[in-house]
Amino acid sequence: MALNMDLIGKTTDPLVHEYEARDAILYALGVGATPEELDFVYEARGPKVLPTFAVVPAFKGLLDACGKLGADLMKVLHGEQEIRLHRPIPPSGAFQTTATVKNVYDKGKGALAIIETNTTDASGEPVFDNVSSIFVRGEGGFGGDRGPSQDKLDPPDDEPPAFSVTHQTSAAQAALYRLSGDLNPLHIDPDFAARAGFDRPILHGLCTYGFAGRAVVAEACGGDPHKLRALSARFTGVVYPGEALTTSGWRREDGTYLIQTTTHDGRTVLGNAVADVTA
Amino acid sequence: MALNMDLIGKTTDPLVHEYEARDAILYALGVGATPEELDFVYEARGPKVLPTFAVVPAFKGLLDACGKLGADLMKVLHGEQEIRLHRPIPPSGAFQTTATVKNVYDKGKGALAIIETNTTDASGEPVFDNVSSIFVRGEGGFGGDRGPSQDKLDPPDDEPPAFSVTHQTSAAQAALYRLSGDLNPLHIDPDFAARAGFDRPILHGLCTYGFAGRAVVAEACGGDPHKLRALSARFTGVVYPGEALTTSGWRREDGTYLIQTTTHDGRTVLGNAVADVTA
Repeated sequence: MALNMDLIGKTTDPLVHEYEARDAILYALGVGATPEELDFVYEARGPKVLPTFAVVPAFKGLLDACGKLGADLMKVLHGEQEIRLHRPIPPSGAFQTTATVKNVYDKGKGALAIIETNTTDASGEPVFDNVSSIFVRGEGGFGGDRGPSQDKLDPPDDEPPAFSVTHQTSAAQAALYRLSGDLNPLHIDPDFAARAGFDRPILHGLCTYGFAGRAVVAEACGGDPHKLRALSARFTGVVYPGEALTTSGWRREDGTYLIQTTTHDGRTVLGNAVADVTA
Repeated sequence: MALNMDLIGKTTDPLVHEYEARDAILYALGVGATPEELDFVYEARGPKVLPTFAVVPAFKGLLDACGKLGADLMKVLHGEQEIRLHRPIPPSGAFQTTATVKNVYDKGKGALAIIETNTTDASGEPVFDNVSSIFVRGEGGFGGDRGPSQDKLDPPDDEPPAFSVTHQTSAAQAALYRLSGDLNPLHIDPDFAARAGFDRPILHGLCTYGFAGRAVVAEACGGDPHKLRALSARFTGVVYPGEALTTSGWRREDGTYLIQTTTHDGRTVLGNAVADVTA
């Protein structure tokens, strides 16, 4: 089934997402936070909210746009993700999110949909934006624009990272992360995963993204989530629940950090990533 | 402050607790379920609901009775717990729970409150009962009855267990279990735990209870949660998040199992326990 290209440039109706401290903590645990990061897992400390939680209230908007595009859940893979934070994320809230299909590129083997969501709080103030690149396998070859080719951002060969931190994911990591809203069976159902071409259920790209964001907050923001203004990343490899993730950051001249996350066997699973902590 | 003994024999007004599949899965993960126990962590499989989830919808009733008794949160310890299941626990529900203070015994160093909760479904049918023994430190010596002394149930020296299974708790186990409703700071706040006399935050007794119940369902019920009719247990030691728990069961002549949970260093943390799987 071809994607609905008429949706390009269109914005969906706003969807409301309400959350409370319990949800912010559940998300933090879903991306591996431990009681040592007490501010993020204890409601009496706020809790502080991880900046990458921005993907959660916006998720329904992204799903809505994917559905309207006609993207089959079994064929979609998350390619890239960017968050831009306009103000601190409160420990509870009622947010509205609209989604705009910015473009759909023809990558041959598949289509790449660029979907931006914009999230505002109850008073209409922008809180954060998400830009998600969703690869839909088998939907390419429609004669469309290939889209811009992007520079590959590699860490410098001759410079050690400013920080490097290893987090263990658990065997139940994807099962736990799912409870923050992305219930795609790919991340829990062995039969579904097999039909989608994987040996077993894989971790959500956005879960890896959350682990990377946690590392950035701890190592480059001194634990202050409000210092992270933006985080963009490409998902470059599959992570299985139970693997260890090492996130490293190289400080660049403009004050941003180049970020990379690798598995214990050296595969880069999150790359082309930049964290803006220059606020 | 003395406890309010006038409450003995009284039953509290019913409290409603609604839950959905996400909550049943969150509980299962809170007591250590992994994706290998897919029926319990995947909504498309029901999910099946662990029998020990019975403590969750009833918890508000227990807390309500403790509050009305005047028990200080910093002084309470969970002594014993029993669940009796009258029908399968559905994957979502809206239950009503009343709590009855059955007695308050004078144990010298503290008071022991016996609180029974009775939980019914929307049609008024009984679903499960809980009996909780809550020890309130410093509230003894009021000249009351010491209560019945209970036989100590020890596993047979000369007989290997019918099953023995070891589960690893995670460093975040208590932080995760809290999201099922028991927000006592003792299980997450280092300062609070220190004031209560512990080196660091301890695992909920009911979390250990859930690990034990999971073991019983897997090993003595063939994975069928509906086969567990009742589980009674005494909390006999402190568990810290991150410790491994080994639950063993000895089959008795009447078909029930004697259950014991120990830590890796051999301390018994859950004992005097009987699982009725004779349905």
